[in-house]
Amino acid sequence: MGDIQAVLRELRRGVAEIIDEERVETLIKNYYEKGENFYIKIGMDPTAADLHLGHTVTLQKMAFLQRHGAIIQFLIGDFTAQIGDPSGKSETRKKLDKETVLKNAKTYEEQVFKVLDPTKTIIMFNSKWANELRASDMIELASTYSVARMLERDDFTKRFRSETPISISEFLYPLMQGYDSVAMKCDIEMGGTDQKFNLLMGRHLQRVYNVGKEQAVIMMPLLVGLDGTNKMSKSLGNYIGVTEAPNDMFAKTLSISDELMWEWYRLLSTKTLEEIDELKSGVESGRLHPKAVKEALAMEIVAKFHNEESAIKARDEFNKVHSQNQLPSDIAEFSVQGPVWVVKALLECKLASSSSEARRHISANAVSIDQNKITDEQLQLEKGEYILQIGKKKFAKVKVV
Amino acid sequence: MGDIQAVLRELRRGVAEIIDEERVETLIKNYYEKGENFYIKIGMDPTAADLHLGHTVTLQKMAFLQRHGAIIQFLIGDFTAQIGDPSGKSETRKKLDKETVLKNAKTYEEQVFKVLDPTKTIIMFNSKWANELRASDMIELASTYSVARMLERDDFTKRFRSETPISISEFLYPLMQGYDSVAMKCDIEMGGTDQKFNLLMGRHLQRVYNVGKEQAVIMMPLLVGLDGTNKMSKSLGNYIGVTEAPNDMFAKTLSISDELMWEWYRLLSTKTLEEIDELKSGVESGRLHPKAVKEALAMEIVAKFHNEESAIKARDEFNKVHSQNQLPSDIAEFSVQGPVWVVKALLECKLASSSSEARRHISANAVSIDQNKITDEQLQLEKGEYILQIGKKKFAKVKVV
Repeated sequence: MGDIQAVLRELRRGVAEIIDEERVETLIKNYYEKGENFYIKIGMDPTAADLHLGHTVTLQKMAFLQRHGAIIQFLIGDFTAQIGDPSGKSETRKKLDKETVLKNAKTYEEQVFKVLDPTKTIIMFNSKWANELRASDMIELASTYSVARMLERDDFTKRFRSETPISISEFLYPLMQGYDSVAMKCDIEMGGTDQKFNLLMGRHLQRVYNVGKEQAVIMMPLLVGLDGTNKMSKSLGNYIGVTEAPNDMFAKTLSISDELMWEWYRLLSTKTLEEIDELKSGVESGRLHPKAVKEALAMEIVAKFHNEESAIKARDEFNKVHSQNQLPSDIAEFSVQGPVWVVKALLECKLASSSSEARRHISANAVSIDQNKITDEQLQLEKGEYILQIGKKKFAKVKVV
Repeated sequence: MGDIQAVLRELRRGVAEIIDEERVETLIKNYYEKGENFYIKIGMDPTAADLHLGHTVTLQKMAFLQRHGAIIQFLIGDFTAQIGDPSGKSETRKKLDKETVLKNAKTYEEQVFKVLDPTKTIIMFNSKWANELRASDMIELASTYSVARMLERDDFTKRFRSETPISISEFLYPLMQGYDSVAMKCDIEMGGTDQKFNLLMGRHLQRVYNVGKEQAVIMMPLLVGLDGTNKMSKSLGNYIGVTEAPNDMFAKTLSISDELMWEWYRLLSTKTLEEIDELKSGVESGRLHPKAVKEALAMEIVAKFHNEESAIKARDEFNKVHSQNQLPSDIAEFSVQGPVWVVKALLECKLASSSSEARRHISANAVSIDQNKITDEQLQLEKGEYILQIGKKKFAKVKVV
C-alpha cells in the first residue's frame, strides 16, 4: 500500500490514546520505505485463557497493523503465575503449574489466530528471561520507581485510601511487566485504557535500562458489554466469548441496544468508517431498519469467529425462533410415562426447576403446548408427542408413553 | 556459673527493650542445664568498617552473653552492597566490589575482636544465600508484608509525609535483612533501638517461613555522643572510634559532661551496677572528684581498646598538657625564613588557616610564645627557636632561620 496517510488514518480509528504517535508513524513509514518490520507487544494473563469480544478490539487493531509491517509479540505472562505466596494470604491468585500454563497458552493460540495472522505472530513466555533474574536484579529494578508514584495507580490509590492491604509484591508485578518490554525490545505495546499505568512502565524501563528505544503505546477503549453500561467482562456475564456457538453469538449481538451497536461497529467491524456512516444515515433517514443493520453486524461477528455459512444459519435460526415464532430445529427430546400432569412434564423436560416455578409460568400465561397457550394447571397429558414451550426461547419435545 | 538469676539480672542491665524475654531466659537456662549453645545475630553494614563506642554497647552485651552460651553470628551484609541502581538516582549508596567488602570485613574483625570472643563468633556473609535467591523468591518474600505496614517504619512515614521519594527497592531491604534471620536460623537478634522495625521483621519472617522458631530481640539504647545530645555517629563527629589513638580516646572521654558520664558508665564500663552506684554516691557526697571518676572511665575505655600501659600514658599526657599547663611531648616542628611576622609564623606552622583567623586569636588573647601571652599583632620573630601556642591544645615549635 502506497498511501501511508490512509493507513495512519485507519490506524487512529477507534483508538483511545496513542503515546508517541510520531514514532508509530515512523515505524510504518520505515516498513514501506525500507521494508523493516516492527514489534508490538501484547501481554496476556495465563490464568484464564478465554477471550471475549472485548479482547478482540485490541487484537483487531493488531491484525490491521500486521498488514502494515507489525510482528506481534504475544506474551504469555507465565512467570508470575508460577510464584507462590508464603504468607498464604492471597486467595485470589492460585499458583499454576507449567502444564496448565502451556495448555492455556495453546487455547490462547487457537483463539487469537481467529484474528491475528499466525505467520506474523510470535508467542513468547516471560519465564524465559524472568526465571534468569536474581533477587539482586529485582532490587535493581525496584530502585527505578518510587513508592509514591506506584501508589498513583488508580487501584492502588483506592485501596491505600480505604486501608485495604496492598502486598509489597503487588508493587513488583508492574515492574516485572515493564521489564518484559526491556527483554522483548518491543517498539509498541498495546492494551486497554485500563492498562495505561503498566504500559507506560514498559516505556519508563526501556529508557532506564538503555534499550535504545522507548516503546510507543496504543490504547484501545474498553468495549461496553451486552448490558450497555459496563465494560465487557467474564465476571459480569455481559460478554460474548470468541468460542461461543454461532447461534449464541448471533442472538447476543441482536440483544444489544441500537446505540451500543454503533460503538460495536466502530470497534469490532472491518467496515470502513465511511461505510459505517452510510449505514447510520440509512437508519436515520428511515431507509434502513436498525434490526437489519444489527443483523449484518451479528453476521460479521459470527463469520469472523466461525464462518460465513454458520453466520447464515445462525441468522435463519434466530429469525425462525424469534421473528416468525417457528420452532427451532434442535429441540431436546424427553420421554415420560403417561398420563402425566403438565407440571410434572415441565419438570421432567427441565423447563422448570420446581413445581411452583412451573405453576407460576402457567398462571403467567407463558406456557404453550404445540404452540397453544394453556391456562389449566391441572392438565393431564395422554400418550402422544407434544412440544412444550415456556416463553419465546425455552422448548422441549416430550413423548408420553 | 550456677546463679542464673544473677546472669539474667546482669543481662537486663542497660538494655532498652527485650522482645520475648522468656525465650532468652530459656536459652540461657538450656545452656546451663543441657550445655546447648544458642545463636545471636548481629548485622553490620559493610560500606564503612569503622566502629565507634556506640557500636560497642551492643557488642559488649554480646560479649557478656558469650560467657553464658551465646555464639555470635556476625553478619556482614555484603549482598545489598553489591547491588547497583540503574536509575542512577542514589548518590548515597555506592556499589562495593568484592575486594572492598572483604577488606572491610577484615577491618571489622580486628575491631570487634577487641570486644567479642573470637572463638565464639562466626563471621557470615549474606551474599551466600541471597545470591542464590531468584526474582521469584524476592516476589514471594515481598508478598509477606503490606505497603501500609512498611510505611509505618518511622523514617518511611516521615519521608512519605514530606513527599521525599522512597524507592521501592528500599522496601525490599528490610525484607532481605529479615530473610537473613530465616537463613541463619538465629535465636536472638540484637541491635540498637533505632533498628526495632528491622529486628521484628526477622521475627515475622522466621514465623512466615516456618523456621520452627521466632527470634527474640534485644535492643540496646543508642549511646549519646560527646556533645551530650545526639546519638554518637560518624557524620556528626561526636564519636570516639575504637581504633583511635589512646591520647585522643582519653581526652575525648574527659570532655563529656558529668551527667553523660554516668550513662557511659552504665553502657560502656564492665563495672557492676553496685560499683557504679558506689562511685556516684562518692561524687554526690563530695568524697570523690568527678574528674577522677571520669579519668577512671577514660582509662577503662583506653585499656579495653589498647592496653593498661597506654591508658596510664594517655592519662599522664593529658594531665601534663591540660592540667599542669606543661608542654606535650610531641610537638610538630617547622622552619621559616626570618625575621617573620608572627601572623605569618602561625600560618606556616598550621596553627591558623588564614591571616584573619590568626589575628583573631591574638586579639582574643589566645596566642602564646614560649608560654607567654602576646597582644601585639605586628610582632616580628627574629632568628631562634620558639614554641607557638593557641589555646590550650594547639602547639608548634618554629625555628626561625
